[in-house]
Amino acid sequence: MRIALAQLNFHVGNVEYNTNLMVSLTGEARRKGADLIIFSELSVCGYPPRDLLLSGVFVDRCMEGINKVACSCQGIAAIAGGPWPNKNTSGKQLYNTAFLLYEGTIQQMFHKGLLPTYDVFNEYRYFEPATEFHTVSLGGRKIALTVCEDVWNIGKGGLYRTDPPAILSSESPDMMVNISASPFAWDHRPERMRVLSENARRYKVPLFSANLVGGQTDLLFDGGSAVFNQKGALVDCLSLFEEDMRIYELQTVMEFAGTPLPDTPSGEGKWQLLKDALVMGIRDYFRKTGIRTALVGLSGGIDSAVTIMLAAEALGTENVRAALLPGPHSSTHSVIDAETLAIRAGIQYDTISINDTVRSLTKTLEPHFKNTKPGIAEENLQARARGVILMGLSNKYGYLLLNTSNKSEAAVGYSTLYGDMCGGLSVLGDVYKTDVYGLAKMINKNEEIIPENTIMKPPSAELKPGQRDSDTLPPYDVLDAILYRFLEQQKNITAITGEGFDGGLVRRVARMVFHSEYKRRQTPPILRVSMKCLGTGREMPLEACYDALLGDKP
Amino acid sequence: MRIALAQLNFHVGNVEYNTNLMVSLTGEARRKGADLIIFSELSVCGYPPRDLLLSGVFVDRCMEGINKVACSCQGIAAIAGGPWPNKNTSGKQLYNTAFLLYEGTIQQMFHKGLLPTYDVFNEYRYFEPATEFHTVSLGGRKIALTVCEDVWNIGKGGLYRTDPPAILSSESPDMMVNISASPFAWDHRPERMRVLSENARRYKVPLFSANLVGGQTDLLFDGGSAVFNQKGALVDCLSLFEEDMRIYELQTVMEFAGTPLPDTPSGEGKWQLLKDALVMGIRDYFRKTGIRTALVGLSGGIDSAVTIMLAAEALGTENVRAALLPGPHSSTHSVIDAETLAIRAGIQYDTISINDTVRSLTKTLEPHFKNTKPGIAEENLQARARGVILMGLSNKYGYLLLNTSNKSEAAVGYSTLYGDMCGGLSVLGDVYKTDVYGLAKMINKNEEIIPENTIMKPPSAELKPGQRDSDTLPPYDVLDAILYRFLEQQKNITAITGEGFDGGLVRRVARMVFHSEYKRRQTPPILRVSMKCLGTGREMPLEACYDALLGDKP
Repeated sequence: MRIALAQLNFHVGNVEYNTNLMVSLTGEARRKGADLIIFSELSVCGYPPRDLLLSGVFVDRCMEGINKVACSCQGIAAIAGGPWPNKNTSGKQLYNTAFLLYEGTIQQMFHKGLLPTYDVFNEYRYFEPATEFHTVSLGGRKIALTVCEDVWNIGKGGLYRTDPPAILSSESPDMMVNISASPFAWDHRPERMRVLSENARRYKVPLFSANLVGGQTDLLFDGGSAVFNQKGALVDCLSLFEEDMRIYELQTVMEFAGTPLPDTPSGEGKWQLLKDALVMGIRDYFRKTGIRTALVGLSGGIDSAVTIMLAAEALGTENVRAALLPGPHSSTHSVIDAETLAIRAGIQYDTISINDTVRSLTKTLEPHFKNTKPGIAEENLQARARGVILMGLSNKYGYLLLNTSNKSEAAVGYSTLYGDMCGGLSVLGDVYKTDVYGLAKMINKNEEIIPENTIMKPPSAELKPGQRDSDTLPPYDVLDAILYRFLEQQKNITAITGEGFDGGLVRRVARMVFHSEYKRRQTPPILRVSMKCLGTGREMPLEACYDALLGDKP
Repeated sequence: MRIALAQLNFHVGNVEYNTNLMVSLTGEARRKGADLIIFSELSVCGYPPRDLLLSGVFVDRCMEGINKVACSCQGIAAIAGGPWPNKNTSGKQLYNTAFLLYEGTIQQMFHKGLLPTYDVFNEYRYFEPATEFHTVSLGGRKIALTVCEDVWNIGKGGLYRTDPPAILSSESPDMMVNISASPFAWDHRPERMRVLSENARRYKVPLFSANLVGGQTDLLFDGGSAVFNQKGALVDCLSLFEEDMRIYELQTVMEFAGTPLPDTPSGEGKWQLLKDALVMGIRDYFRKTGIRTALVGLSGGIDSAVTIMLAAEALGTENVRAALLPGPHSSTHSVIDAETLAIRAGIQYDTISINDTVRSLTKTLEPHFKNTKPGIAEENLQARARGVILMGLSNKYGYLLLNTSNKSEAAVGYSTLYGDMCGGLSVLGDVYKTDVYGLAKMINKNEEIIPENTIMKPPSAELKPGQRDSDTLPPYDVLDAILYRFLEQQKNITAITGEGFDGGLVRRVARMVFHSEYKRRQTPPILRVSMKCLGTGREMPLEACYDALLGDKP
């Protein structure tokens, strides 16, 4: 039995495109001698379809799409994913279903039993969980068909009360298939591989896992579809961050000794992953929304430098525009650094001073600000003048403004709402400042594109004379270490302090995080590259009192 | 047996405040001779606590709070709500629990079985659903204790596979208690009353329902806690939109004949409800975030006029500031109308021309806009100049800027991101334009505060000469009727066209809704007053292709 694993970049909502893509790949796999082709979870509608699933018209189109793929299954079988109506009188209206298609029709269906509803996932919003699980049959072989989270109960310390693979194993399947849409985080893949491997090993079946690839607004899918033998050894992985299809002979898989599971990356390995993921995310957001050109405000600082270089790699330099917006407190070196970068990278740029606008705003507000001390309000005028000018260019030419905020500043609210927080997509909003330096290193790997000075100088918002980030924030290596423990690891103040951090500082950072929730509520979508992104996936009440968490005395 | 129904305005996250409030009311109820006091769902942490529940420290504080309330229960019992750890080895870590407290301890617990996970609700994100249901006992009486959604399976056409009240009824309870946090929508209360009544009638038990009251950012809770007799007849309702406590003798409740259930309001009844809800929402957001003063940009149009009058009612005129920001295309009457309103209402206002700033921006961008036709980009400069000035005042004085966009324009994207979309809270974002007129009518009920001219003139953004909303949009009565069917009623294009609307127009409106999802992703929180608000509760993918829904030919 020859099995094709198809890892494709489906487009949410674009049922026609997704259907045609599956029909085309099914034909190709058949010509290459495959008996079965496996697509990823909810392949017909793309993932995550979110509230599109609440439309009956949309679900009908998905069902037509699945039937069209079924029609193309002549001399080959396919496993595809889509929503399917729950015909029972009770429960949610839909199932998240894996379809076994051959001889022109839907032969069997398997409904997902474990519905992830945490972090960025909200599947129980739409789907009824299956409670009965049976293998499906193909060519005399029994397949334990599962959908993504179904195989994860062993990886999550028993988050669910049922364990579909354990139930399916009682029917002695010959192989297991997992169709998934498992999103990228820089440190997630080793865990994913471990869980899949453990399922193969525990139930003594070869396992074929087809994962989604591509960017869907904030959620990035890295692909890396994988095959394991019945001992749980990794046989092969498909590419990361790009479409791929490979065909495997079942017997060969079972006889293959296996290769080591991937380790958690660090250093350059981590930064390369981040870079590849972000480039894919930018590229796909533009392609899927039909927008051609990106606009980046270049300050001479490292965040905007890295953002524009990622955009240039994703879209081509010809589809990227830079705007240099020097203001009253911009240093000469900043303008030079920004220009140097644009020239080296071959990116078209305009220099547009905000001085005149800031002067007008200052003059206009002067009678209303009199007898007050200059402060945040005056600083923010500059950031917002830049926002207005950038959005003016965006509106005039249809450019999509990329937001350049990093995760460290977004987390503590060191940013101006409607100023540097403007943009249609946040590229670095899930990347800590210390990792932004890592990205710069990767970008400069072969030649110095981002000026050394941009990398070496102390970070500054340049909104008042001599300002440095370190006036307001702890050093970024300390800040990022605290934030990582507080956000990703969900440790409390006591626990973080117990690791040797200053208790007062830890509490101050936590307070800054809580007190800037209101800003992040209005953030652009953030490309998610960690296990805890501050965009979708964090749902904090705004009007809450956080004392119970802050009063946690170290 | 004397039962106190306590309808309180809990504060999310403020465990100490909520606990003290319950202790205090328990004492008061005891002094008034009550044997039992009933608080609302998750009373110890406030509703919705959202991701605060992911903090172990927070859950510990909640449990301490519940124990403190228990300690105060001497000579009286209490039913309170809070999170409680799931001690099983599998499932989500928490239950959404109702506690029966007396003689100083937690006597019995009831875990919620039906977890709403749709629209604004995401309870399955945090809680494990209970699967076993038993009555609790107090003074020889059996109580069918339920938490909010538990009684709703009959109202939702079988959304869930279990029906806790049916299971509990097999133990022949003497009464039913429902503790709830059921949010307001202008047309929701009759349905809520009907469902509660039906539970009492079907299971032949008197029913006491304690609902939350107060605003929690976007979610508004109207209270209206209710008592039904064993025939399902309504015995009494607590106040709407304010705290209340009443004590009932069980025997009297059972003997009471009942009063009619409320009808769906319309006309002035509807507008009065909207007004009361929005005033409460503004008041509570300010109170709970500790912000004192609201700022509103007054244009002379009806949206900002209604917004500022609602704020004045919520906060007192002395805590409201108006900024009049005339621009190059503002008409004389607009400035006069805005001034007239501020003077009549006694609201302190400043007039700040945006002309100088717009001139600077225009001059600054001129070399970059040359050989282009003036259009949206130029219009948006004006809206954004206003945004910058308003946010300047907000930053300088700690005012919270109220957003004045209405639901009609927010739905079709007839608004400027970072311009008139600025603000910390959207007051009218869930109110259709036609209802904004209704609100104006209520505000002017006793005397003309909002100038007649503001109400009578054709709506205009005044961003170019002679501009009217009707240049771009269909008349608001038609637009709102289509939007209501498309959003609230979730009807598709064919169905709406079938009701007599122009098919091309319906599709154009649907397209505008889909193509402005990206703007609404960055909207401020919107006070929710309908069953489908465009803020929390609508989760649409941004990069999606919507053709499957738009291609639905009439």
